[in-house]
Amino acid sequence: MLPENLVVELHAVFPPDRFYTDPVDCYAYAYDNSRKIFPPDAVLFPLTSAEVKHIVTLCNRYRVPLIPRGRGTGTAGGSLPELGGIALSMERMLNIISVDPANRVIVVEPGVLNQAVQDAAKPHGFFWPPDPSSAMFSTVGGNIATGAGGPHAVKYGTTREHVLGLKAVTAAGNFITTGCYTTKGVVGYDLTRLLIGSEGTLAVITEATLKLTALPGAVAGITAHFRDLTSCTAAIVKIMAQPQLPSALEFLDSGSLNLIRGRYPDMLPVDTNAMLMIEVDGFHNDIADAISVILSACQSDGLIHASTVENTATLWQARKALSPLLREIAPKKINEDVVVPVNTLPQFLHGLTQLSTRYRLQNVNFGHAGNGNIHVNLLINPDDADEVIRAERCLGEIFDLVIKLRGTLSGEHGVGSEKRAFVSKEIDCVTLDLMRDIKKLFDPNNILNPGKLFPVVE
Amino acid sequence: MLPENLVVELHAVFPPDRFYTDPVDCYAYAYDNSRKIFPPDAVLFPLTSAEVKHIVTLCNRYRVPLIPRGRGTGTAGGSLPELGGIALSMERMLNIISVDPANRVIVVEPGVLNQAVQDAAKPHGFFWPPDPSSAMFSTVGGNIATGAGGPHAVKYGTTREHVLGLKAVTAAGNFITTGCYTTKGVVGYDLTRLLIGSEGTLAVITEATLKLTALPGAVAGITAHFRDLTSCTAAIVKIMAQPQLPSALEFLDSGSLNLIRGRYPDMLPVDTNAMLMIEVDGFHNDIADAISVILSACQSDGLIHASTVENTATLWQARKALSPLLREIAPKKINEDVVVPVNTLPQFLHGLTQLSTRYRLQNVNFGHAGNGNIHVNLLINPDDADEVIRAERCLGEIFDLVIKLRGTLSGEHGVGSEKRAFVSKEIDCVTLDLMRDIKKLFDPNNILNPGKLFPVVE
Repeated sequence: MLPENLVVELHAVFPPDRFYTDPVDCYAYAYDNSRKIFPPDAVLFPLTSAEVKHIVTLCNRYRVPLIPRGRGTGTAGGSLPELGGIALSMERMLNIISVDPANRVIVVEPGVLNQAVQDAAKPHGFFWPPDPSSAMFSTVGGNIATGAGGPHAVKYGTTREHVLGLKAVTAAGNFITTGCYTTKGVVGYDLTRLLIGSEGTLAVITEATLKLTALPGAVAGITAHFRDLTSCTAAIVKIMAQPQLPSALEFLDSGSLNLIRGRYPDMLPVDTNAMLMIEVDGFHNDIADAISVILSACQSDGLIHASTVENTATLWQARKALSPLLREIAPKKINEDVVVPVNTLPQFLHGLTQLSTRYRLQNVNFGHAGNGNIHVNLLINPDDADEVIRAERCLGEIFDLVIKLRGTLSGEHGVGSEKRAFVSKEIDCVTLDLMRDIKKLFDPNNILNPGKLFPVVE
Repeated sequence: MLPENLVVELHAVFPPDRFYTDPVDCYAYAYDNSRKIFPPDAVLFPLTSAEVKHIVTLCNRYRVPLIPRGRGTGTAGGSLPELGGIALSMERMLNIISVDPANRVIVVEPGVLNQAVQDAAKPHGFFWPPDPSSAMFSTVGGNIATGAGGPHAVKYGTTREHVLGLKAVTAAGNFITTGCYTTKGVVGYDLTRLLIGSEGTLAVITEATLKLTALPGAVAGITAHFRDLTSCTAAIVKIMAQPQLPSALEFLDSGSLNLIRGRYPDMLPVDTNAMLMIEVDGFHNDIADAISVILSACQSDGLIHASTVENTATLWQARKALSPLLREIAPKKINEDVVVPVNTLPQFLHGLTQLSTRYRLQNVNFGHAGNGNIHVNLLINPDDADEVIRAERCLGEIFDLVIKLRGTLSGEHGVGSEKRAFVSKEIDCVTLDLMRDIKKLFDPNNILNPGKLFPVVE
């Protein structure tokens, strides 16, 4: 329950349609795409940075948890109000402050949808490269807080590479301004990237200066079907060894393909056991070269066929069919987004097969193979206690394998609450302590998204 | 003078050829390219990260300033031992730990020269994009500490975009490991970029994992000569509005061109008052298109001629002639590297002309126009006290203009000691205080490069 005086102070400023306290109203802010449920005691919808400052200052004074959120599309539980408190929904800070094509810059408030940025940039010939699969519905603030990636990261990088500066409110209620408006700038410490990926634990972002990228003149798609995983991973490694990076290089394993076949029997060749969806973009003249290089890298005894596709909608057809199926079959599936060095993908995917066999778990893998970023899904039945235990053990071994191969536990989803228990496998305790000290510096009373990102200390 | 016990403890570990205390030996470590001189009390040359840890721990215990340095090529005074203490020369940590072309990664110790990275990467078809003009002689550690850029930043970005992870020793003598080995990774706070550009004030970098980029298949150069500044800046803005970014877009103003003419009368057309040197790179087929787009963007009444050049050596001829001339004419010149949004370049360069006229100062401007990163030179005679005062006032107004245009005070040189006095023009005091707190967190006793990067608090 919130302190009564805090509620009174908030009511003095926020009208009822921007300050929910009724549990029924609050419920929609109790969950994200991790599908855990922790209702907040209240939800606030600020419209301005001054209002954000006011809220943060009050929560800091009353020591009440404040959990910033965009549209709740995150999969790692980063926006769950685990300890109650106030959900700070940024979804109504919707202004596109400026579109500046001459300098390739767009300035937006945090509630602006990723898609709205694309729509504002496109008439000028630009786009903003971060493209999580939630791009239609997720906010720029959320993309920044999680360091979102997506299929095009293989060529364009992730959010980190496409933000020039931020305005934010620290937990002490101070406005800070980070970075700059230009593509170069080295004055002071890089607080911009410190906030990117910090999952709302350090400050509340109130404005973002985004760097835009020119839309490619031409885009082409290739699908490649393989008889076996080995040929497919060999092709991934070969493609990534070429100078010209594909703009997307997505992978589906046999588990994924079988799920798709179950629903759409005619979508895929019967003997495809691994599949790549590859996109190349650039200027018109070089597309043909890039396609030919990629088709050639796919050649092997295990290749069934590789060919260009008419349009990109066709290219992503199989991938788009998969996610709803997974959700349907295993609503409580474990979905990880580990990354391994690209040339260890054969070893990693082989290891996943061994581990899922040993632990008797249905395992489906797909994802951004060009970055070595694989979405590892364990399709568990949450009512089967034994299976849940086996899945937990298997997951621990998967993460160990990832670390052994010099990978990372999360490429784009973040730690949130879902991966906290495993962070110490990747980050040593001295470095983690330094991160904890940074958290304390920004948020001495631990009010901003408390408990997220860090492993629980015993 | 160093505490006697510290000297004894250091002598126990470091042989005389790796521990200089004779002022004559130390003198070479008293200066950098800012041409100020502050002799250290000693110079240490660690060979391993364990030795770095030992040194940092001792300096922390004895509260002795420790000033990490690469090869002292920085221009902002970042490696000057202003308060004495120990210069920590990283120049002998020279191992290239691994070259991993399959994953486009190279791991190096901080003393490895930028050029050595290029040499190691090239046989595999890769390069490391940061290319400060000191690349032949500057170290990776120094490049990272300053967030180095260079002409190719317009297309490839700066150091910040090309480092995956770091190992470092904090002032408390703790080893930390930041970032990861893969191109994606969002576990924990981004300490990698916090260290990039921190000018040795937070930690001593002992190892860097660098992201490599494919060498372009083709490179072409264009020079464009303009009768007037207005036509030239209009061309810059037009070129940067095209989808395909040039790989370099360098500018010389009339002051620069006149200096070159004075020494090399036949190098330049007589009526050129502003010049662009433009490089495009990419895959073979698209180069011709890119050239034609750029030539067309250069067209105006003020264009004398624009044409492709036979080889890139010719392209950079005028630019390379300039720097030694500047040094010769005005050894104590003020050399800034401000950045303004590209479409404000006409206004900015016009403003520079007005200011230098008003303050009766010889002003020469050139630089990375594609990023809006202009090297503003005031060619002063340091023995002319009145001129020195005028230059200081003029500089203050130049920085005010930069900030008014939403620019930044440094695009690639950093703050060091040279720009400290002006940092508050760009960064508000709340944000600066937060940066100071981060400094305290990493370095509670203020031993690492003390006094740098921050304005002096009265």
